[in-house]
Order: sequence, then C-alpha cells, then structure tokens
Amino acid sequence: MLETKLQELKTRLAEINDLHAANGVLTWDQTIYMPPDGAAARGRQIATLAHIAHEKFIDPAVGHLLDDLRPHEESLPYDSADASLIRIARHDYERAIRVPPQFMAQIFAHTAESYEVWSRARPDNDFAAVQPYLEKTVELSRELANFSPGYDHIADPLIDMSDYGMKAADVRTLFAELRKQQVPIVRAIVAQEAADDSCLHQFYPEDKQLSFGAEVIKRFGYDFRRGRQDKSPHPYMINFSISDVRITTRVKERNLGEGLFSSLHEAGHALYEQGVRRDFEGLPLASGTSAGVHESQSRLWENQIGRSKGFWQHFYPKLQAVFPEQLGNVSVETFYRAINKVQRSLIRTDADEVTYNLHVMMRFDFELDLLEGRLAVRDLPEVWRERFKTDMGIAPPDDRDGVLQDVHWYSGIIGGAFQGYTLGNILSAQIFDAALRVHPNLPDEIAQGEFSTLRTWLIDNIHQYGRMFTAPELIERATGSPMHIGPYINYLYTKYGELYTL
Amino acid sequence: MLETKLQELKTRLAEINDLHAANGVLTWDQTIYMPPDGAAARGRQIATLAHIAHEKFIDPAVGHLLDDLRPHEESLPYDSADASLIRIARHDYERAIRVPPQFMAQIFAHTAESYEVWSRARPDNDFAAVQPYLEKTVELSRELANFSPGYDHIADPLIDMSDYGMKAADVRTLFAELRKQQVPIVRAIVAQEAADDSCLHQFYPEDKQLSFGAEVIKRFGYDFRRGRQDKSPHPYMINFSISDVRITTRVKERNLGEGLFSSLHEAGHALYEQGVRRDFEGLPLASGTSAGVHESQSRLWENQIGRSKGFWQHFYPKLQAVFPEQLGNVSVETFYRAINKVQRSLIRTDADEVTYNLHVMMRFDFELDLLEGRLAVRDLPEVWRERFKTDMGIAPPDDRDGVLQDVHWYSGIIGGAFQGYTLGNILSAQIFDAALRVHPNLPDEIAQGEFSTLRTWLIDNIHQYGRMFTAPELIERATGSPMHIGPYINYLYTKYGELYTL
Repeated sequence: MLETKLQELKTRLAEINDLHAANGVLTWDQTIYMPPDGAAARGRQIATLAHIAHEKFIDPAVGHLLDDLRPHEESLPYDSADASLIRIARHDYERAIRVPPQFMAQIFAHTAESYEVWSRARPDNDFAAVQPYLEKTVELSRELANFSPGYDHIADPLIDMSDYGMKAADVRTLFAELRKQQVPIVRAIVAQEAADDSCLHQFYPEDKQLSFGAEVIKRFGYDFRRGRQDKSPHPYMINFSISDVRITTRVKERNLGEGLFSSLHEAGHALYEQGVRRDFEGLPLASGTSAGVHESQSRLWENQIGRSKGFWQHFYPKLQAVFPEQLGNVSVETFYRAINKVQRSLIRTDADEVTYNLHVMMRFDFELDLLEGRLAVRDLPEVWRERFKTDMGIAPPDDRDGVLQDVHWYSGIIGGAFQGYTLGNILSAQIFDAALRVHPNLPDEIAQGEFSTLRTWLIDNIHQYGRMFTAPELIERATGSPMHIGPYINYLYTKYGELYTL
Repeated sequence: MLETKLQELKTRLAEINDLHAANGVLTWDQTIYMPPDGAAARGRQIATLAHIAHEKFIDPAVGHLLDDLRPHEESLPYDSADASLIRIARHDYERAIRVPPQFMAQIFAHTAESYEVWSRARPDNDFAAVQPYLEKTVELSRELANFSPGYDHIADPLIDMSDYGMKAADVRTLFAELRKQQVPIVRAIVAQEAADDSCLHQFYPEDKQLSFGAEVIKRFGYDFRRGRQDKSPHPYMINFSISDVRITTRVKERNLGEGLFSSLHEAGHALYEQGVRRDFEGLPLASGTSAGVHESQSRLWENQIGRSKGFWQHFYPKLQAVFPEQLGNVSVETFYRAINKVQRSLIRTDADEVTYNLHVMMRFDFELDLLEGRLAVRDLPEVWRERFKTDMGIAPPDDRDGVLQDVHWYSGIIGGAFQGYTLGNILSAQIFDAALRVHPNLPDEIAQGEFSTLRTWLIDNIHQYGRMFTAPELIERATGSPMHIGPYINYLYTKYGELYTL
C-alpha cells in the first residue's frame, strides 16, 4: 500500500521533472541555435510547459500522497533514498503551494519590465531610471518572503531558495570573518608590482583553444558521452538528465584565460551533475543541492586545480605544443603568475580569485539592508561607492560600472542572488582540504595530470547524494566540520604568499 | 458567449500545440546534438510530453466546446479562419478519441520491437525474421482502420492520417494512369546510352557545398531569421512555430548532388511552413495540409526549379566559381545531363525523378493488397521481385535491396506510408503549371535567379492556408482543376524528350 503510494509519488514527480527537463532543452536551444525570430513562440512554449509543471505539482493529490507517506518516511533512516525523496518533495511542495500563482505572475511581469528598463539604463548610466523599479522589486521580495512566516531574518526564505538549509545569520557570520581577513590580503597585494599577463593577450585561434579545453575537461572526468560543449555569449551548465549534462563556453581570441577557465569552471558544475546516483534519474533528488555547493565544485576545478602550479607542471608543455609561437618562449613561472594576476577591478565578473569575494559580500550586505529597510534604494549608488572605496581602495567613476553592473537585481528578486558565489569559494577549499586529508598524494597525482582519485572522492562524498542533504548537512558529512573559512584563508595565504609578500 | 468559447478552444489548442512544438525541439536536438547516452531519458521525456498533449486533447471539455461551437461554425463561411479552425480541430479530435490509448500503446510497443528486429534482419537479408512482425503489423493496421467504420476501402482511414481528404480509390485511379504512362518512358530511356555523371563524383569539400546550398535557398526565399540548416544522417524539415522552421541536410564529399538537392528539397518543405498566415501561430491550422501537398513543394523547388535548365543558366557560373578545379572544364550541358541522369536502381531513395514513382506505386499497391487480405505477407518477397521486373526490367538479387529496404513498414503501420511521395510529384507539376498560366514569364525570372514572383504565388495560393483546406480542396482552388497527372506527364515528356529520344 505504502509502496503503491510511493510509486505514485515518483510517477508524478518524474512527469513534472520531464516537463522541466524539456524546458531545459528549449532554453539551451534558445541561447545557442534558435533562429532570432523564433523567440516569441519559444517564450510562449516555455511558459506553457512551466505552467503545466507547476499545476501538476501543486495538485492537492501530491499533498495527500506526502501526508500519507509521512509515517513511511519516519520509519526509514534519514539518509535513505526514499526518506530523502519524500522529505525533499515535501520541502519543494510546501514552498510551491505557499505562494499564490497570481503573485508569481506579478513578479515575472515586473522583473521582465525592470530588465527592459535596466538594459537601456545601464549604457546610459541612468540609475534614476531603474530606481522606482528596484524599489518595487524590494517590496515584492519582502512580500515573497512573508509568504513563509516564522523566519529569523526576512532574507531567510529567499536565501533558502538557492542555498537550501542556509540562513542570513549563517552567511553573515561567515562573511564578516572572511571580509576581515581578506581586505588586508587585497591591500597588501595591490600595493606590490602587478603581474605581467601580456602572454595571455596574444592571438590564440578559437578552434585550438576549444580543443585544448575539451582535452583538459576530459582528463578531469567530464563524460562527453553524457554531455557536450557549445559556445554561448554567457557560459553556463545545464542538465536534462544525469546522462545529458551540457556546458557552454565563451572564447576570446585575444584572451587565453577567458575560454579555458570558463570551460574548467562549467565542467566543475557538470561533474557534480554527472556524478549523481543513477537511480535518482528523473526524480527531484537528481540535482546539485545548493548554489553554494555547486559553485564549490566549479571553483574547485577552475581554481584549486586549474590555477595551481602542479596542474600546469603537467599541462603547460602540452599548451606550449598547441601554441608554440605564442608560448614557446614564455616560462611556466611567467604563465603561472599571469593566470593568477591580482588587481582591483570595478566589475565583479572580471575579478580575480582574491578580490572576487569582496564584490560579492558587499552585494549580500546591501541585500540584507534593503530587505530590512535600513537602506533606501535611492541611497544605493552612494553606499556602493563608499563601500567599494573601503574594501578595494578605489571608487567606481559612475553607476554603469557600479551599482548598475549586474543583471541580477534588475531581472529577479532581491535576496539570495549572490551569496552562493562566495560560499562556493569558501567550500571549494574546505572540500579540497578534506579530500587531501584522506589522499595526501593528491598534489602529486594532479602534477601528473591524474584526477581519478579526487574525482572518485568527490563522487563518493558530494556528487552522488544529489539533493539528499542540505548544504550544511552535506558539508558536515563530507568534511567532518561545519562550513568555515579556515581552509580558504590558508589556501589564499599559501598560494599568494608565494607570489607576493603577505 | 460564443467568442468566449472560441477563445477557450484556442487557448486549449495552443497549449497542446506548445507541447508538440516542445517535443519537436527535443526530437531535433536528439538527432543532431544530443550526446549518445542521453537517449534513454530523452525517450522518456518525449513520451511524457506526448502523453500530456494527448490527455489534454481528448479531454471531454474539448468535445463540448466543439459541440457548442458548431452553430457558430455553420454561420461562418467555409473558408473563414475560425470555421476552418473549428472544422480541423473537430476532425483531429474525433480521430483522437476514436482509438483507445491502450491500442495506440500496443501499436507503439509492437512497432518498436519490429524496428529492432528489422534493423538486424535487413543486413542479414532475413525476411523470415520480420515476417511474423509484419503479419502482426498488417493485423494491427486493419484494427486501427476499423476504429473508423463506414469507409469505402479499409485503407481510407489510414491514408486520411497523412493525406487528409484523399481516399484509396482516388489515389488508385491517379496511380493506375500514371503507371501506364510512365513505364514506357522508363523503358525508352534505359534502352539508350546512360548520361555521364562522373563530374558530380569528384571531391567537393563539405563547407563549400554547404555555403553554396545555403545561398541558393536564401535566393528561393528561405528565411534564415526564421530557420537554420544543420547536418543530420537523414535530411528532414521540422518546425516549432511559423518563425522557427529548420531543415537538415546530408553532405557527401564525393557526390555533389546529394547535399545540394537535399537542401533544395527540404527548403521546399520549409518554405511551405514559413509561408503560413502568421495569425495561425500556435493553432492546429499552422501546418502544411497533407503529405502529398508538402511533397509537392519540396519536389517543385528540388526538381521543377533546381533540376531545370533555366535555373542552371544562372547558377552554374556561380557553382563553377566555387569549384573551379572540379567544374571549370565541365560544360553546363554536361552538368545538366549529369544531374538529370536516369537509370534503373534497386533502391527507392537513390532513384531519379523518372523511375522514382514506380518504386512508390508498387509499395502503395502492396499496401492495399495486404490490407484487403489479397496478398499474404509470406508472398511479399516474390511479388516484389515480379513487379519490379515488370516495371523496371530488372529484379532485385535479394530481399535486403528488395522488400526489406524501407524502414516504413517495419517501424509503423501499413497503409498510407508512401503515396504522398508520388502525389507530390504529380502535384508539383500541376501547381507549377497553374503558376505559369498566371505568370508566363516565370521561366525567364528563374533563368535570372529570381524567384519572388513564384514564391509569392505559392504563398497566396498554397502556403498561407496551412490546414484550412484538404488537399483536394486546396488543389482545386489553386489550380482550377482536381488532381490530375496531365501536367506531370507533359513535364516528363518535355524535359526528358530533350535529353533522350522518347
């Protein structure tokens, strides 16, 4: 009887999953191959599938099944697949039924309009144009949060949407400590002579860049039988099943780092999705558990591995063989300094790994202040400039490259949009550190271009679980400790202490 | 009130259309870009969307709306858009509710198994292996027809699925006459010296072939803002909206004709779909009306235009400029004879335009005989050889290149699978002839690489209507006569009478 109900739940969830997966394919196609005039019909098709998926999910029959299955769930170990499935489905279901569809429609309509206004206002450096829209966005974000009463902080329900299991207070604590440690590192480095990265800005033909990147991610373990790489204006990972996990990259022929590191980054995301237990296929468990943990995987392969000295011991001669004219006379040391160049920059997406978190943490703080009502939207440009000056020692000359730079606040809600990036950096070090304790020979393997030990450890301790555990649960299980910044700060000091005087 | 009901019908139909369009994208992706191991999940996703679309369509509420709208339909002119929409939706609805879903599931399961067996049996030349499956297919095809009682011929309901509005008797009459006229033409030509087509079998690099083909179809009027061309193992056209109509082609570097004419052929299909009235977007009217009329468009652009003398007067110098080494010393006359080479061949898909119909008509006759019970499956290989000898003057040496050659009967039902190909040939001439009567200067325009007069005439008289009219209605309106073979026979005599003694 319970088996029948569990089976019915799985059947319903798989149907909903298929609709979302289909929409994934429609979206992938839209950004890569769709002819330009196909956009209007495609938008309608995506909306239709999303609507049907939502209707099927909020069907009261799903709620009844979840109620009926509660005793079954409680009879099973917390970490069993079935208990986890019921638990996660209930979590998603309760969130879905909490918010009236009309309210979600209002948010979509508003953010679509806001995006339109922003896309003209940014080139015009016109914050005044977006201000009323952003004010409305803050208001709607607060209302959205208030559909989930009983929170500690008004941002909690919003953060939970991307970093399930995390609260504003947890993130705040981590970030406050990180900022205290990181600002002095940035100060110290930028006071010293900048690295020369001109070797990266020679002419590198696109096809050779692409095939070199593909070779590297194949070595990482990215399975091209269950994935593919295409070009798109903004690199991303998208998955339609555990056996179809695709990435995109963006290649610039005058910037070798751009395409290569975006490939490694997206491959990190993809390895996570390809590593989920196969028997989760088609169920809501078959996905990475949070934005932060996802970003930990992309950052681990991009930075901890891809920007490490050992990695290039093995791969630099191969890269030189592909680009003998460009790199034949460039030493591995020069190259290594170039790909790890630290500099203060105005734009988050251009930032190196040392300064990047400062960009993120100021946005997170502003989100909390806006939601709490302690900061008015009209004052945002000014506080942005001040905070930037405090943390980076420079101030943006205008709003275009200041408060208007990111699409997030102008195309979605406020709250929870950014913290995953820095959580990912913190966790990438904590996770790599844990793997290293079990396999102290990892650095030697990496220096030989061998990644299978690391990859297997990641599958066993992170990837396979999909959404079974929240981020805090998963990290505690995988590393033996709660999230903490120690390993990340150590990583920065060790790596950059060699490159600069810290 | 009626307006509200009509609106509700349109909303429901648009939702169903979006699900089918989404499945189109999933299928396109599957044949072109999907990584190999993605197949299992993709199959499930496609089945889920098809199932939801079917469920939503057979909802009794759709039937009630159609009943309620009957008076409205009858108050409108037959050729108004709304009357046509209600009429076509009712036609589709009645067909959909007539057949129990379990029976369709049985057909799908059986044909999937049959396909598996066939794909091994064909290389093994083993008709005995497929015989029991084909017998079952004949039986299921009869049962399927019998869900639509009241037919004149048991094949009628099956033919109606692809060539809406046509009956076995209509097709039989056309084909009997055509065969009588066409067998002597083939006999006469193959008795004469064969054309030398060696110029087509030099080395032609793929990228140059693709860009030349793309230039030609752009001249035809194929709109790349609303379409794109990719490579696939089997060329086809697929559309997800009026503004997203894609084609695929297959290029062989040792066969210039293969890729070029498959591009022109598929572009002909695509021009039809791109030419549908824009206000039909998202409705069941937004599609070509039948297999035969669709094929008339592909054949018109491929053969009537693309294999004509006038066309190459304009394009041959351009082709020579692209391939100076291969074609610089080949005269346009030699080239023209090469692309119009006639020869007896065993395989339908390799056949030229003179012999092609003989392949199709024998299959059509066998389908009727099998459904009528006048021919047993076990006798099929033998009657195939005999008929082939009678019509072509040669006999296939084995079943592999005889009765086992086409996938159709082994992956779908019997009845209605083939006639569209030859109806298309017949209609391509009848339609071009009608356009010529209105615009006698068309041949001059074509010889100057100008196609807009023809394209506009086709939009006005064929394309724009989508599914508003059945094939017989549409042809009568567009050409002033019922379907008849006269123009096609004239075309063959005129064109091939110049190349051979007839």
